[in-house]
Formats: sequence, structure tokens, C-alpha cells
Amino acid sequence: MDTFRIGVIGAGIMGTDHARILHRDVPHTQIAMVADVDDQRARDLAAEFPDCAATVDPHELIASDRVDAVVIASSDPTHAEYVHACLAARKPALCEKPLAPTVGECEGIVAADREASAAGPRLVSVGFMRRFDVGYTQIRGRITDGSIGVPLMVHSVGRGVRTTVGTSEFSITGSAIHDFDVIPWLLDSPVVEVSWLAPRSSPDVHDRQDPQFILLRTADGVLSTVDIFLNAVYGYDTRCEVVGSRGAVSLTEPVTVVTDAALGRTMQYGQDWRPRFADAYRRQDRAWVQSLCAGTASPLATSEDGLRAALVADTVIESMRSGSGFVPVPSIT
Amino acid sequence: MDTFRIGVIGAGIMGTDHARILHRDVPHTQIAMVADVDDQRARDLAAEFPDCAATVDPHELIASDRVDAVVIASSDPTHAEYVHACLAARKPALCEKPLAPTVGECEGIVAADREASAAGPRLVSVGFMRRFDVGYTQIRGRITDGSIGVPLMVHSVGRGVRTTVGTSEFSITGSAIHDFDVIPWLLDSPVVEVSWLAPRSSPDVHDRQDPQFILLRTADGVLSTVDIFLNAVYGYDTRCEVVGSRGAVSLTEPVTVVTDAALGRTMQYGQDWRPRFADAYRRQDRAWVQSLCAGTASPLATSEDGLRAALVADTVIESMRSGSGFVPVPSIT
Amino acid sequence: MDTFRIGVIGAGIMGTDHARILHRDVPHTQIAMVADVDDQRARDLAAEFPDCAATVDPHELIASDRVDAVVIASSDPTHAEYVHACLAARKPALCEKPLAPTVGECEGIVAADREASAAGPRLVSVGFMRRFDVGYTQIRGRITDGSIGVPLMVHSVGRGVRTTVGTSEFSITGSAIHDFDVIPWLLDSPVVEVSWLAPRSSPDVHDRQDPQFILLRTADGVLSTVDIFLNAVYGYDTRCEVVGSRGAVSLTEPVTVVTDAALGRTMQYGQDWRPRFADAYRRQDRAWVQSLCAGTASPLATSEDGLRAALVADTVIESMRSGSGFVPVPSIT
Amino acid sequence: MDTFRIGVIGAGIMGTDHARILHRDVPHTQIAMVADVDDQRARDLAAEFPDCAATVDPHELIASDRVDAVVIASSDPTHAEYVHACLAARKPALCEKPLAPTVGECEGIVAADREASAAGPRLVSVGFMRRFDVGYTQIRGRITDGSIGVPLMVHSVGRGVRTTVGTSEFSITGSAIHDFDVIPWLLDSPVVEVSWLAPRSSPDVHDRQDPQFILLRTADGVLSTVDIFLNAVYGYDTRCEVVGSRGAVSLTEPVTVVTDAALGRTMQYGQDWRPRFADAYRRQDRAWVQSLCAGTASPLATSEDGLRAALVADTVIESMRSGSGFVPVPSIT
Repeated sequence: MDTFRIGVIGAGIMGTDHARILHRDVPHTQIAMVADVDDQRARDLAAEFPDCAATVDPHELIASDRVDAVVIASSDPTHAEYVHACLAARKPALCEKPLAPTVGECEGIVAADREASAAGPRLVSVGFMRRFDVGYTQIRGRITDGSIGVPLMVHSVGRGVRTTVGTSEFSITGSAIHDFDVIPWLLDSPVVEVSWLAPRSSPDVHDRQDPQFILLRTADGVLSTVDIFLNAVYGYDTRCEVVGSRGAVSLTEPVTVVTDAALGRTMQYGQDWRPRFADAYRRQDRAWVQSLCAGTASPLATSEDGLRAALVADTVIESMRSGSGFVPVPSIT
Repeated sequence: MDTFRIGVIGAGIMGTDHARILHRDVPHTQIAMVADVDDQRARDLAAEFPDCAATVDPHELIASDRVDAVVIASSDPTHAEYVHACLAARKPALCEKPLAPTVGECEGIVAADREASAAGPRLVSVGFMRRFDVGYTQIRGRITDGSIGVPLMVHSVGRGVRTTVGTSEFSITGSAIHDFDVIPWLLDSPVVEVSWLAPRSSPDVHDRQDPQFILLRTADGVLSTVDIFLNAVYGYDTRCEVVGSRGAVSLTEPVTVVTDAALGRTMQYGQDWRPRFADAYRRQDRAWVQSLCAGTASPLATSEDGLRAALVADTVIESMRSGSGFVPVPSIT
Repeated sequence: MDTFRIGVIGAGIMGTDHARILHRDVPHTQIAMVADVDDQRARDLAAEFPDCAATVDPHELIASDRVDAVVIASSDPTHAEYVHACLAARKPALCEKPLAPTVGECEGIVAADREASAAGPRLVSVGFMRRFDVGYTQIRGRITDGSIGVPLMVHSVGRGVRTTVGTSEFSITGSAIHDFDVIPWLLDSPVVEVSWLAPRSSPDVHDRQDPQFILLRTADGVLSTVDIFLNAVYGYDTRCEVVGSRGAVSLTEPVTVVTDAALGRTMQYGQDWRPRFADAYRRQDRAWVQSLCAGTASPLATSEDGLRAALVADTVIESMRSGSGFVPVPSIT
Repeated sequence: MDTFRIGVIGAGIMGTDHARILHRDVPHTQIAMVADVDDQRARDLAAEFPDCAATVDPHELIASDRVDAVVIASSDPTHAEYVHACLAARKPALCEKPLAPTVGECEGIVAADREASAAGPRLVSVGFMRRFDVGYTQIRGRITDGSIGVPLMVHSVGRGVRTTVGTSEFSITGSAIHDFDVIPWLLDSPVVEVSWLAPRSSPDVHDRQDPQFILLRTADGVLSTVDIFLNAVYGYDTRCEVVGSRGAVSLTEPVTVVTDAALGRTMQYGQDWRPRFADAYRRQDRAWVQSLCAGTASPLATSEDGLRAALVADTVIESMRSGSGFVPVPSIT
């Protein structure tokens, strides 16, 4: 197929970013339709692209003859419904993380995806874009090529400037879930037990425990730590260090200039995840379209990966609520 | 126009990179034809793209109905001929730097470009890709927004690992020429005089003076230094600092990971310019195609910019040969 | 008093370093006597200083009229005995960490120190030199001046190249004990509970669990993590980050040059703690002598601080052995 | 001799710093007398040290039986007179840079020093403290051990926050003179020609050309650049890179902590040279006293070194005034 006509469900931040990236940076795509519950928002985004329709009904988009593949970037609770509709319509779907808020929904998607994709490549991909970030990719390369020996520990840090809505659970399902996907992907080993801990909580945050500190044990014995602090004020900051028996490898903040002023040399942080991961989204969306063009398996996270991350998130919440230390994570078949 | 059909002249490193970038990363393009004096090389590169023809005759490519726009990445001495052919055919051309090796040729191109483009956007663009590098762009932003006060000095460093062919002149026309374009672009002020100096030359280099040290004075009074060392062994390293009356801003090496091993923390350099400027080429080529699609003026360097850089290079060589210190650079009209 | 005549017990690495620092870098001191069970070693070290005696009997040194104050840098199990002898002789003692290997011994020292020092400044000081490191001091300053808001988490990392002797317990009492002192000192809040965790252990280490991961909760609610890896191979590396509600502050590796070579920019790590903390030892020993000269209270860690660190170490070992997660740390009166 | 009794001439910033460093950080010294034209200032500084006298007459200090050695930190034009008096009194003198403002005075001192020191170690030392900075020392080590191949270029940067008094000449004799000493020391090769250049001058500076850019050619053919900007506003910043045929080595700013706040990661600069070079002064003054105690040659810069730096400064000023490019530097015998 020459050009993939993409329908984008959700005209919020993520849907808008995907639509623009696909239009501007990914060959062989056409943004053909935008769906959003807010009619105006759908039409505004659609107006950015030639010959792009707008609708308030995602099911109309999924069913449309104008749409070959679907990006699902609506609110988390709606993901499962639209993924199922895409599977029913036999259309490839790139679903933003999380695949779905509950493990049960994720399991349903995996079953349907396996059935619908029986005769060809899987239809469902999940937007865990860190797998396409150059930094994480290089860390994985250093592990694989043996240059740090055997991996023993991972230290991951995820800090944001300010989050106004949410609960303690949302820090886990909405933010730490990236670590629940990328750490086992780096180590090539599934998470088998988790423990949730509460640092002192910021006195400026009233709607949740913030920061949170999570321990993950993968099947290979590696202990990983996840420090999530969504109201860290100082900047959007993602760190990851993998410590091995012979050396260590760490992400660096991808800055391009440094400024000398006011008695300091300063490297700037972004306000949110978008500058930090803009290139990862681009690479991910390009890889998705390339696989569609080639008719090959999507190199993105699969529905099983989405389910695995949801299982970890669920178990972390269980540890948080029970206060009982390490809790085993169910495996999937 | 929906899709621009691009012909690429030269299937060497730069032509191959442009073709792949345009194909993989720039929407609305099709690599329609490849020309190279080496027939096999032309066909090998063409085979990477669907429906792409190959030829040994660049003029056939330029004249072809299949080709809407041309990338000229053949050897430097052939640039002028093909640019003129593109102008005669009224086809937009992105010419790799240098626009042409001699000032006279550049002047001829500028005249022809002005005539051919009288009724619309200029047809000739020059591949000074640093203008699209995020780091240089941010430095320019810091100058423009006044955050470093008034610019006073620029220190530019360009180091490579190893260069096997060339002369002292080639370091100037082939490498330092990037600085002759990007420094006046950063400062928005033309180079008015230059001086060439010889540091101690590396005992391992026998075919040229290496390193070289060049001073540029722009019309605004700023003094810029250019330290070019093409056989620096240790890595491909591009630095630029702009010192202002209130602060300074500098490029940082765009690394994404750092490795701890063998009693050191190490950030890796690339072997050559390609990893360092891959994203700049992508942004440049995308901007070129976007302007073609929109029918607007190309945001790339113009033929006048190419001529200006050639005049600076010529004058630097004159300073080198005469050993007489600062030499004035002719201005263009 | 004009010049303090110092006796040094233990002519190993630490005793030698203290003697040389006091002689070369601290005014108003004279190394008057050296004691070591190895007679030759005692005499070799003594020979470095003018008018310095040697003995195999530390009690002779402590009792000697030639000695005004004592540095105890003998093996850990001997510390308590010599500290008590110094107290009995009413001579100020700077005891290397740990004050003593067992809590019981530390308690005995605290009691004796309180009694002996009833009428004046405390006689016992403990060599937790990190309190005099410029980096830790600046971190403490940033906490105190409110520039990072309220402290919420501390992440401490202590890595060494290779340790040939020891047990899992020794990593705790010999190395992590620095963190058990410096973290509550930074936060001005005692450790109230601890938890010990085993990351995957290095396959190259056979005599202990290495790395180890320790969680500390201080009375202020801050959660601190201590990552101790004594056979990390890649270098001696000490890190500390304090994350607050408004910002964070971190140690940087105190390097002075960086080398570009072999496709990398490399900052060198030390082989062991001595280059990293040379200046901290100098500042500590100078501060100790200054307090002796002034007749004022020693600004070094007190015997109570030594006891507190021992209590934390003890409780961490209890957590390690029981595998039961967080264990409360007894407080002292 | 057990303790050297030091007289300090000049109770300004530098004299005060030397007196405090010698008192607090250098064994075997006693600050015995302070001289300053301002009586109160002399007495205030003297009051910081036990048994320390004050005078308004430096010659009284130099002649005094209470003084074994002299630190000369008075205003530059007075240096020569006091150095000659010290030589006449056969007392070792550590003279702050510059040795003297004029070449003629320096020549006079060298001649007198040679004569007075005929039978033993030289009496005059010059306070070019960068030779004792750990960073410069390590750079020299990397050159000597061959790890960067053959040195080809040196890039030195010296920036200050604000200087309120002075002329263009003072930037050269008072500040760049450090480079005129340390660069030939690093390279072990004297400066043979120099050239002075004017970058655009800061619009906020009215009393001098600032920044200035100076080129030095040493006898080994290495080309060195010196970028001096005393009103750079942003911070006190000293940089030095030595580029060799196989690699490069650079100073790093000696920071110990980094702060994350306000959307930036910031490393702080000092307000002036004192925090940056505090340790270098300490090491220098300690080395001086150690050589006095040992009766060996001072490892500090000699009067010849002081003369050489003055000759370079003089020639740079000549180049500045004549505007004639490179000017040869006279050699000394």
C-alpha cells in the first residue's frame, strides 16, 4: 500500500502530537480522520491536515472506509472499547499507554488480538515510546554486548514539574507504568515481585503521595528502583542507570546548549515529557508505519506487553494498599 | 503538489544519506532517479527505493519528466554545471556545500539563480545543514532574545578523526566553510576580514597543515576563531561558544548515555559528522520539501550564502598563501 | 598550648595518612609517637617525622608524657580498648570509624566519655570525615537555607573497585556506616527504621552479597536509599542526591581535568577513597587540632554519633539476617 | 629551623589571604609582622594572629629580627623596592605576581637575586600559583606522559565578573600574565612571539578594551590563544585546553555540587578567583615553607620566570599599541 490513511481518536495533547508527527515526519501517511468527544476540538485538529474529516464518534472513524489504521489517544478508560472495535474491523491500532486501566480489560484485548491476528501480524501495538528513545536503546545495547558485565541493579527516576489532577494510583498507572515496561524490556526479564514505599510526601502536594518509591524484582534477580515524583517542581527529568558487574551505563539529559549567566552554568530542563521524548515518538510512529507498509510484525510493544505492565501496576497498587512489602506479580501465558 | 519526485545526483556518502533521509523521514517525497558516474553505484542506490531509475548521466536526470527537484551531491567541481542545468530546467535544486569551489562559479550561479527565479521563490538552496541543527538554532535564539547581551566573540572548533585525502586548502573549502556560513548566520553580520594562522602541525599528518587556526571579523566587530583539526584522532567534535556582554552560550556534545568502566566515566564521540548532524540533515531536507510543497521560499541557505562562504574561503586561502595577516573579504551586491 | 604532640596508633593505611596529613597540612602539631603491633611498620612510619618515637604497645603511647592527643587507626576490634585508655588518661582521641564494632562497646565508650568529659569538652571524636567534605557540606547548606524546599528523599551510592576481604556484614559496618552517619547529619534527623535488600549479586564476588541495597527512614519521614557495591570494578564512586519539595542537590565527582582520546571524553575515577576524600581528611584533622588548641568542643562526630551509626549498622544486619523488611532502630538517650 | 616567622607586606586581599593560609594551613609558620601603609589595616590583620606586630613601614618589617621570610603582597609598583630590600637582608621573599610592572625592574631583580643567592637556593619566589593548581598540574602530567601525543595548540580562557579599575594594559599585566607564565610552564617552551587582537568590546565597559584576545607562539611551534574578559558578568571562569596530535586535555570547573531548580541544572561559578584557586595558593605557600624548612630550592616560579612573563606582557602591549600583528619576544640569558 502506498499511503496509510490514519484515523486519530482523541484530539488532546497526545492525539494532537501523534497526528502532527505522522503528518510532518512520517512518510506514507495521511491523517484522514480525527475523532473527539469535543466536536470543535476534533474539527480544529482535522483542519491542520488536507482532506481530513472530523467526527465525535470514534466508532464512525474506526468503521470508515477512509481509515486504514487507527491511533487511540483518548482517555484511558476508553482504550479497551476502541481497541476491540479496531480488532473487529481488522484495522491495525496504535494504542497509547496504558493499554487499559484494568488487568481484566488488558486480558480481554490480548485474547481478542491473538484471535484477530491469527493469520498475520498482530494488529495491536502499545505506545511505550521509551523503547524507541535513543538513550534507552543504547543502554540496552550496552547490556546486550556485555560491556557492563551482568546487570545487577537498575535505578530509574521519573520527575515532573507539576501534576494537578490525580491520585496516588494515577502516579503508578499513568507514569511509573513506563518503567514497568521499559525495565523488563532492557533486562529481557519479566518483573516477578514488587514493593511500594512512601518517602516523605511533598507538603505542597495534597491529592496524592508524591514522591513514591517502588522496588521491582525481575526473574533474573536484578533489583530495580523506581523513584516517581510528579510534582518535583525543578524540571522534567528522566534518569536511568543500569549497574552491572563490570561497569554501569546511564542516560544523560539530552541537552544541546548550556548557558553561562548569573554566576551559574545552566542546562535547561523541559516543562514536560514532550521535548524529552519528541524524537522517541517520531521513531516509534515511523517504525509503526514502516511495519504497516511492509506487512511485517510491529516492532512496538505488543498487547501482551501492555498486559504485563498492567499486572505490575496492579500489584504495585496492591503493595501500596496492603503495606505488606514485596508482592508477587502474576505471570501471563 | 502531492509528492515531490526527487532526483539525486551522486551516489556517494552524501547522496546516499540524502536519498535515505528523504525516503525514510520526509513525507511527500519519492526518490525517482539516481545518477552517478559509477553505473553500479547508481543502480545499487536506486534499488533501495521503489520505482527509482538509475543513470550515469546527471543531465538525463535533470531533464527527466520523472524528476521534480534535484539534490546535487556529486563531487565539488561538478556542482556548478548541474546547478546551471537545474536552473535552465526550472527545477529546484538542493546543492551540497560548497555551492562551487571557485568564487567565479558561485557568482555565475547567483546571477543565473536570480534570473531564473525572478518570478517566484529561488530555485537554488545550499546544504549548510548546521542552520538546522538544534544546538546552533538554540544559540541563535539566545543571541536574538538578548539573554547573553551583545555578542562579542565566537569560538568555533571543528575536529575530525582522520582525513586521508586533501590539502591545506581543502580543510578550508571543505570543512571550515561550514563556519564561514554558520557564524555570520548566527550573528546576522557578514564576514569582513579574515586571517589564517598555522599552529604547530601534527607530526602524523603529511599532506597538509593540520590543525589550522582562522580568525574572522564580522561587520558588527565580533571576532570569531575557527580551530579546524581534521586529524585530531580522538573523535569527531564540533564546538561553538558565543560570548556576549552578559553571558555565554555553548553547544554541548549531544550524547545520550555515559558509561562507567575501567576507572573512567566516558562519553563517546562519533567517528565522523554523520551521527552528530543526522538530525540536522533530516530537518534541513524536510524544510526544503515543505517549502517545495508550499511553493514558498526555501528556508535553506541561498546561492548568495553559498557565494559569501566561498568568498570567505577564498580570502582565507589568500591569507594563508600571503602570510600577511588580516585580508579584507569582498562584499557582494 | 603551642604545639600538640600527637600519638598515632596503627601504622596501616589510615594511620599513615593521618600522620602525614597532620604533619604536612596541619599547623601546631607534631607526630610524637607511632604505635603498631608490627614493630618495623611503626618504626618506618615514625622515621618520616622529626623526633618521633615508635612502639609496639599502644598503651605505652597513650600513657606517654610525650603525647598530648591520640589518633586511633588500629584494627576495628581494638578501638574500644584504646579509646577507654585515652579517656582514663584524660587525653583527646580521634578514633577512626567505626567507633567500635559492637553496640555494647560503643555504649560503654559513650558512658565513659560523658563521665571523663564532665568538666570540659568531650574527649572522644570519631572520624566520619564526610562531614568535612566540601560537597556534603554544601548539600547540607542547600538543605538548611531552604533552596530545595523540604527534603523528601536521599539517594546515596557508594562504589569501590575491588575488596578482597570481608563478609556481607563488613560492607555494612565498614562502608555503609559512613552513610548511617552522614545522612542523619545532613537531614538533622535520626534514623528510626531500616530495611536491607539483596540485588542480584555480582557473579565475580564470592565472599559476600555485593551489591547491597539499604533503605533508611529518618524521624522526619525522609526515605533514604543506600546502594553499596564494593566490587563495582569501574571506579571509586560516591554519589549523594537530596531531593526536596522544590529542587534537588547532588554531589558531583570532583574532577579537575577531562581527557579526549580514543573516541571518548573521559573523566577519571580514583582507585579508592583516598583521592576522593583527601581534602575531607585534611579539613577534619585540622578542625580537630584547632579545637584542641582553642580548648573548645570538637566539631567532629561525637561518641554518641559513633554509637548511633553502630545502632543503625546493627539493625541493618538484623534486617539482613531476618529478611523481614523494616526493623526499628533503638534510640539513645 | 623549627618555625618560620613570616612578615607580610600588604594587608589587602592578597596579603590577608596569604597570612591566613600560612597561619591556618601551613605548619611551621608564624605570622610575625604585618606591614601596610594603612596603619589600621595593618593592625587589624596582625590582630588575627598571636604575637604578631604591625607597622606602616615595610622596611622595618624586612629588617626586623622577628621576621625570617617575607611575603610581598603590596601594590604592584612597590614590589621591586621590597624585593631588593629582602635580597639585601638575605631573607627569602615570596612576591605576588607580577614580580614588577616593568621589564627593567624585573631585570634588576634577577641580577640582584642571582648575586644574593650565589651560595645557596634562590631567595626570590614569584606567586604564579596556577603552577600548584591540581588541574594545571594534571594537564602538565598528561603532556609529559605522552597521552595526548605532541602538543599543538593551547586554548586558555580567563573571565571575571567585574573589574572596576584599570586600563587595557592592566588586563595584560594583571590578569593575562598568569597565562604568560603557565602556558610556557605547561609546554616547557618559552614564548617567542605574540599578537594582540581586539574583539568587539563590551558596551558596558568604558575604561578598557574588554575582552582582549592574545596569540602566543612558543619556541616549540605551538600556537596558544588567550581570551581575557574581565567584565564577563556571568562568573569567574578559567579554562585551559591543550590539544595534542593524539588527544586533548582540558580543565574542568572544580565544582562539588549541582543544583536542580527552576527548570535548570546549575553549576555555580565563583565571584572571583579566590574560591577557584584557594587550594592552589595553599599548596604554593606550603611548598614554599617546606623548601625554606628543608633549605632546598623553592619550587615556585623564579625571578627569571617573573621576568619572562613581564617580557611577554610588554611585547603584548607593544603589539596592542602598534597594531602590527606578531611581535617577537626578547629572550633572556
